[in-house]
Amino acid sequence: MSGTTSIEIYDTTLRDGTQAEDIHLSVEDKVRIALKLDELGIDFIEGGWPGSNPKDVQFFSEIQSYALRHSRIAAFGSTHSAKTAADDDPNLQALVNAKAPVVTIFGKTWDVHVRDALRVSLEKNLAMIEDSLAWLRPRVETLFYDAEHFFDGFKANPDYALETLRRAAAGGAERLVLCDTNGGTLPHEVTEIVERVRDALGPEASLGIHAHNDADVAVANTLAAVRAGAVHVQGTMNGFGERCGNANLCSIIPALVLKMGLGCTAGERLERLTATSRFISEIANLPHNKYQPYVGASAFAHKGGIHVSAVQRNPETYEHVPPERVGNVQRILISELAGRSNVLAKARQFGLDIDSQDPAVLEIVAQLKELEARGFQFEGAEASFELLMRQAMGTRRKYFDLMGFRVIDHKVREDEAPQAEATVMVRVGGQVEHTAAVGDGPVNALDNAIRKALDTFYPQLREVSLLDYKVRVLPGRPGTGAKVRVLIESTDGRDKWGTVGVSHDILEASWQALVDGIRYKLLKSEHKDG
Amino acid sequence: MSGTTSIEIYDTTLRDGTQAEDIHLSVEDKVRIALKLDELGIDFIEGGWPGSNPKDVQFFSEIQSYALRHSRIAAFGSTHSAKTAADDDPNLQALVNAKAPVVTIFGKTWDVHVRDALRVSLEKNLAMIEDSLAWLRPRVETLFYDAEHFFDGFKANPDYALETLRRAAAGGAERLVLCDTNGGTLPHEVTEIVERVRDALGPEASLGIHAHNDADVAVANTLAAVRAGAVHVQGTMNGFGERCGNANLCSIIPALVLKMGLGCTAGERLERLTATSRFISEIANLPHNKYQPYVGASAFAHKGGIHVSAVQRNPETYEHVPPERVGNVQRILISELAGRSNVLAKARQFGLDIDSQDPAVLEIVAQLKELEARGFQFEGAEASFELLMRQAMGTRRKYFDLMGFRVIDHKVREDEAPQAEATVMVRVGGQVEHTAAVGDGPVNALDNAIRKALDTFYPQLREVSLLDYKVRVLPGRPGTGAKVRVLIESTDGRDKWGTVGVSHDILEASWQALVDGIRYKLLKSEHKDG
Repeated sequence: MSGTTSIEIYDTTLRDGTQAEDIHLSVEDKVRIALKLDELGIDFIEGGWPGSNPKDVQFFSEIQSYALRHSRIAAFGSTHSAKTAADDDPNLQALVNAKAPVVTIFGKTWDVHVRDALRVSLEKNLAMIEDSLAWLRPRVETLFYDAEHFFDGFKANPDYALETLRRAAAGGAERLVLCDTNGGTLPHEVTEIVERVRDALGPEASLGIHAHNDADVAVANTLAAVRAGAVHVQGTMNGFGERCGNANLCSIIPALVLKMGLGCTAGERLERLTATSRFISEIANLPHNKYQPYVGASAFAHKGGIHVSAVQRNPETYEHVPPERVGNVQRILISELAGRSNVLAKARQFGLDIDSQDPAVLEIVAQLKELEARGFQFEGAEASFELLMRQAMGTRRKYFDLMGFRVIDHKVREDEAPQAEATVMVRVGGQVEHTAAVGDGPVNALDNAIRKALDTFYPQLREVSLLDYKVRVLPGRPGTGAKVRVLIESTDGRDKWGTVGVSHDILEASWQALVDGIRYKLLKSEHKDG
Repeated sequence: MSGTTSIEIYDTTLRDGTQAEDIHLSVEDKVRIALKLDELGIDFIEGGWPGSNPKDVQFFSEIQSYALRHSRIAAFGSTHSAKTAADDDPNLQALVNAKAPVVTIFGKTWDVHVRDALRVSLEKNLAMIEDSLAWLRPRVETLFYDAEHFFDGFKANPDYALETLRRAAAGGAERLVLCDTNGGTLPHEVTEIVERVRDALGPEASLGIHAHNDADVAVANTLAAVRAGAVHVQGTMNGFGERCGNANLCSIIPALVLKMGLGCTAGERLERLTATSRFISEIANLPHNKYQPYVGASAFAHKGGIHVSAVQRNPETYEHVPPERVGNVQRILISELAGRSNVLAKARQFGLDIDSQDPAVLEIVAQLKELEARGFQFEGAEASFELLMRQAMGTRRKYFDLMGFRVIDHKVREDEAPQAEATVMVRVGGQVEHTAAVGDGPVNALDNAIRKALDTFYPQLREVSLLDYKVRVLPGRPGTGAKVRVLIESTDGRDKWGTVGVSHDILEASWQALVDGIRYKLLKSEHKDG
């Protein structure tokens, strides 16, 4: 990357990101995300606020047992309390005890906040900033300062706002990170204020930017600050964060690298961006936003007929960057032609020998449309899709016939969990098997019963276990009679495969996905490796 | 608004918005949205492309029977085809036949597109632009020109791009709208290019901006163009649109009015913005994005304990604009990050009289933490939280005791859906009720059975229906034995309330949320309005 100006990327998904409504991460989730961010090449990963809760303390302890390739872990906290000296402050102690190579502390910039929220004198606040940093300086490797409410504070009282930065620098902060905490600043204001800060503090001040998206311009504010001289960017993956979210690193990193001629380590591994973004949504248990720039499923999806033929001639006509640069793919939506070419492409991927003129192709396209209209979705369920293709081509065995199932869930006391029991009747090679099993809930009972019924015929099913079970209520009829879609991911220790079921009855939908998962394993052990 | 520069707002939700994946609007949907946009005070509503499909033709016919208060309807189309003269072009004819007071046509700016996609000479394209506009000019009231791919075209060949605008103006276009069709342009480029266009065309050129969000900066690009002199803004409500969406008018309008000192008619009715935004998501049958700036449910929601106590002293501390200015509300969230101050704020909101020193407050905080560790989540389930608070305070009745339930789901043929039946036994005022019901799936059967059991005692439950039922599989144990969280939203026609349940057994989790929903209604009819 020699010759290219390099920008530091500081991710705060694990700290500021978890301030978002509906985002809850366990310690294990946080560790998995940190490892993924390290693979992407994020420079700094802010893990949490050790002074605020025991979960964050545990994260800092656990992450020490991993050797990260590139990322450095940062612990976050506030300046010392007005009631204690730096030496006796438990929050500062907790920061040092977290044993992270990087510590970032935030202090107050806005004079009104200092008086009304912190309730100390302006001079006392300056001393708290400088003392806290000076106390930390010899105790940590790398030390950053987040100037909370910097832009609002600067607008209210520029001299005082600048003085907080000078005192932070005097205390030993290596970066002065200008925070738009309320997210209400517009890009032209960011440009002007960052330029004025640089003029006031001189070239030796190393500035960063931390933007929030309340005015829908967090990415633009971040890029404006970088153009005005900031060398350090704070943000979160997928823009997770308080209220409307933080500046979205999934949009900032490709803009820096692909559009602004700047460098960063994550920019060298940009083709991992989409997968990382989706992984983090999965771990946070939120649907990935399909309209998300660069990494969303719709980001390079073309619907209108004119656009489709144009992008097929020349993708630049309606694509601002090549999707593969960020690890995404072009998609052609709902066109008959696209249907056929999609099906043929999938067939090749599955190793199925099908001619483009085979009427089975059109039958598959028609079935696909009908099933998708009913709520099926095969993106996470390619094994179900392969079974459907083989059925249309006449190259699929059923392996067993279901004669029926019965599930009973029985609760006998208000404060006790119910007992779930399932019976299953199947016919395998002319023989009828009728078995029963209990389980942890009715779906688990059904899962146990079908495996028991097939066990003597297909012992290879013992290798199969379930990795994931997801339920989504489909739009349409409201309330408990709504349709649900169940996605199941199975593994036999070598491969993983996804299957799908849809019904008004959640047990029926689960059953469809379970049975597809079993049939796929049997198909696999007949035709393939396992 | 005298003294304030006024910006024209041109909404294309009904045309460009419907290019989004998953957005499908019927003619009736489009009419309902148009009437709502008129109430908001949007200046122009682009209804569709009458030359492209019969549904759009029908919209233009139906909308004529409504007397709009303020908005003017626009029809969209392309310049005439290279194969026909303007006089014989069916697309231009269709535009006139739509009888809309405004017509907007688009033409090509980017020289590469003219040659590769349109496959005509550069001069032919210029003639097509001017001829099409000149033909329309005497036949329509108001005439606008959208310069497709303007920014990419200008970067590739500025002289040619400018010439297309000059010819559009010569043809009679009243606005020259610069489109960032691929959405890849950054704000500093927009500023520079719009300034250069103004320098080249002079002050009489009346410019507009049409931005897409592929680089996550569509709102910033729009505001940058306005600052550089554009007086006309095109966008969509909620940012709906192709790929990553169009510039979001729900973010642009408040920025213009509250932050940039500009005026627009919709800005005078800004308190309708949130309701309009949510209405349009409802009609499009998409969940409203809770993180959406200004209008999202989370936009003014506070989670962290420090932030909560600060916003209660002074909302400006963490709110960039007053939520009521855009018709939104402040919310205090319940979460593991919550402390006593959140609980006390909630109690006040629920109208509960609780002293900050009451030991019940600490008990509630402790219970909350324990329940959240088990997978409960009260952010979408405030009714369950109110029941929990009232229980801790000893001011809650149970209304009935559950003695047990039994659910049977019975599938008798592989190709038929199962039959679901539930029995419920409850004790109400010393009397035991034992009832049975069938349903569309086991949860629906359980719902029907409990209502039947309580019907004679609490007839007010007949008013209650379920609006939404959501299931989420919680991280932890993999497979079908995983824990699930169920969220239910109920209504009695006046209010809506959310309740939650968590269990390894999906029927038990659904049961908990159903029972909380019923108990909340009974509490409400005892203490409150309904």
